[in-house]
Amino acid sequence: MERKSFAGMHCSVAQCLEAVGDWWTMLIVRDAFLGIGRFDQFQQRLGISRNVLTQRLAHLVRHGVLERVPYSEHPPRYEYRLTDKGRDLWPVLTAMRQWGDRWAAPDGPPLLVEHTACGRVVEQTLTCPSCGDRLGSGDVRVVRGPGDLDHLAGT
Amino acid sequence: MERKSFAGMHCSVAQCLEAVGDWWTMLIVRDAFLGIGRFDQFQQRLGISRNVLTQRLAHLVRHGVLERVPYSEHPPRYEYRLTDKGRDLWPVLTAMRQWGDRWAAPDGPPLLVEHTACGRVVEQTLTCPSCGDRLGSGDVRVVRGPGDLDHLAGT
Repeated sequence: MERKSFAGMHCSVAQCLEAVGDWWTMLIVRDAFLGIGRFDQFQQRLGISRNVLTQRLAHLVRHGVLERVPYSEHPPRYEYRLTDKGRDLWPVLTAMRQWGDRWAAPDGPPLLVEHTACGRVVEQTLTCPSCGDRLGSGDVRVVRGPGDLDHLAGT
Repeated sequence: MERKSFAGMHCSVAQCLEAVGDWWTMLIVRDAFLGIGRFDQFQQRLGISRNVLTQRLAHLVRHGVLERVPYSEHPPRYEYRLTDKGRDLWPVLTAMRQWGDRWAAPDGPPLLVEHTACGRVVEQTLTCPSCGDRLGSGDVRVVRGPGDLDHLAGT
């Protein structure tokens, strides 16, 4: 199961995939948003080997998604926290969660996300800044941007 | 590099990861949204082996994300099209694209998404249905839903 690097592709989806690394890594990011920070906590929740977890955490630190922050000096201990770049993955997780809630959650949504200030459950949507309409994939078209060096848009 | 199935996890993010399968698969879905449908087109654009592509397409068909539709009877030829479940991955791709545009697109966004009706570039955001505020991950809290059988929310 080869795993080619997407680093050279001029595609923002591929760049996101490159930074996140693999599926396990996305669940590490999920848990970081849920307040998990310590190695043993991640390992316990995810049930993966220490070796795999070490690799994935190092990948996320290398890509600037997580940072290692000391929480004890004697003995030296670190926890992992989301950086700004990492916190900006929230919409990705949210979109995945909403898809799973809709298509693969027979017992109902495992988690709900509420606006802290008013307690309402919130949803992520694509809307038009001009008319305010809520849009689906059928209401939009993809056009070339300045960075389309790989000619993704041309079919 | 073991690849455990996420099918048994009560987490909608994990369920989305399970259906999409792996990173290559997400780029197949991307290309399907860009109008690609035939095996040889996918292969040419993605540059992966026929063997890997065959596996990934079969995975997406098995999970109901793509369907095989005949486009020629003599000889029998098929193309792949997004189902409703597949088209509903648009917000996931959009969130990934927006992240990559922001953090890993030094030449500018490769692709822009416009509202077909009015031509404005559109953006996906999390907003509160009550007050209409645009929300970041710091403005929301995660609470248990009915399907939280794995106690994800409890830290």
